[in-house]
Amino acid sequence: MRVRLIVAYDGTNYHGWQIQKNAITVEEILQQALCDLLQEPIELVGASRTDAGVHARGNVAVFDTHTRIPAEKIAIAVNQRLPEDIRVMQSEEVEEQFHPRYAESEKTYEYHISNVPIQLPTRRLYSYFVYLPLDVEKMQEAAKLFVGEHDFAGFCSAKSQVQTTVRTIYDCQVEKEGDEICIRVRGNGFLYNMVRIIAGTLVEVGLGRRKLSTVSQAIEKADRSLAGPTAPPEGLTLIKIEYQN
Amino acid sequence: MRVRLIVAYDGTNYHGWQIQKNAITVEEILQQALCDLLQEPIELVGASRTDAGVHARGNVAVFDTHTRIPAEKIAIAVNQRLPEDIRVMQSEEVEEQFHPRYAESEKTYEYHISNVPIQLPTRRLYSYFVYLPLDVEKMQEAAKLFVGEHDFAGFCSAKSQVQTTVRTIYDCQVEKEGDEICIRVRGNGFLYNMVRIIAGTLVEVGLGRRKLSTVSQAIEKADRSLAGPTAPPEGLTLIKIEYQN
Repeated sequence: MRVRLIVAYDGTNYHGWQIQKNAITVEEILQQALCDLLQEPIELVGASRTDAGVHARGNVAVFDTHTRIPAEKIAIAVNQRLPEDIRVMQSEEVEEQFHPRYAESEKTYEYHISNVPIQLPTRRLYSYFVYLPLDVEKMQEAAKLFVGEHDFAGFCSAKSQVQTTVRTIYDCQVEKEGDEICIRVRGNGFLYNMVRIIAGTLVEVGLGRRKLSTVSQAIEKADRSLAGPTAPPEGLTLIKIEYQN
Repeated sequence: MRVRLIVAYDGTNYHGWQIQKNAITVEEILQQALCDLLQEPIELVGASRTDAGVHARGNVAVFDTHTRIPAEKIAIAVNQRLPEDIRVMQSEEVEEQFHPRYAESEKTYEYHISNVPIQLPTRRLYSYFVYLPLDVEKMQEAAKLFVGEHDFAGFCSAKSQVQTTVRTIYDCQVEKEGDEICIRVRGNGFLYNMVRIIAGTLVEVGLGRRKLSTVSQAIEKADRSLAGPTAPPEGLTLIKIEYQN
């Protein structure tokens, strides 16, 4: 059977999701724990290859197995074998054809910014520290410009190898939550570093260093040099991935 | 002059506040950073000797110095020399007689509980994981019993060496905040492990393992064996200490 997992992790101690040589990743640790539990070779396929330091509440991964353990029991069983900074929140059987990257989905990310003169130490691993005051209303206006179908080639790091850089953003909200500002963005897909470049661009707007018109330009011209910097990874959390079925 | 600091820290990587042999503490790191900055021997006196793993947003410490750096500039200057998990939030000159433990004060603590089947990895260092559902209303009723002046000898670990175990709690609230339950308690002073034992007792109430009457009994009889267990340190944060002047 094919099993789908919802995976949460604190990305602080990992070099991102995807298995690589000479660095510990979430995928490697989870795949090994599944092999140990199910006593067979397991090959995980993840939905989102989050970067080093990026967190997840709801990344998705699938694998095929011959086990007789019921799919929905695998979450609790594998958690016993995982370090505390990785948790499988849910496991369920899915159709054999289901692929977490090719199936149509909506992804939601949050980017958190500590906008205070001195950052609380307990937030240092989970938010981007910006000590100059940000204009939230300006950021809210700018956020609206990302909504819709656009060629996001300007909001994508060079490493990216994709067939098309056109993506649709359904929603992009900026909210003040106590001492933090949260950018919440939902779309049908995101390019490499796209949310972090959107966040970096919105921070420039919030600081008054960038006008709204230059945000529109960066989107229209699809030119990376016109967008803002890539905001640091610790502020980013992959909240959820919703599939049509 | 005497300088008062408001100190925040992530307690995860420290063996508590107070300097000890063979273990790294917040006081040691902060004192050393102040010595390096001010180029003179510094002796810190802290208000609250928080335990290993306990966090603070507003612990208080004082020291005497001959420096000509204005007191209010010391916070930013010393932060340059501190690791990111310790931050001085504020510095100011106080009267030479001010002592952070002997001066009358109100302290506020929060104890956070993740009450979900599977704990989010990003909350593992900042909340106590209880997977069985807690009855928040029952906990709220029990919390009221702590309010007032009581002999809290039953809510204090043996290590404690104090003249009196009588303390006044002004307020003890239990609130549901999303997936977490927050116990917020404010009083004129707290005995060793007192907030963690109150939290451990309230969790027993929330689980239905303890009746309200046995909470009253544990307070009245001032007997440690009648109170609940000491809840783990990671759930606890010292929020603030307010002085009369």
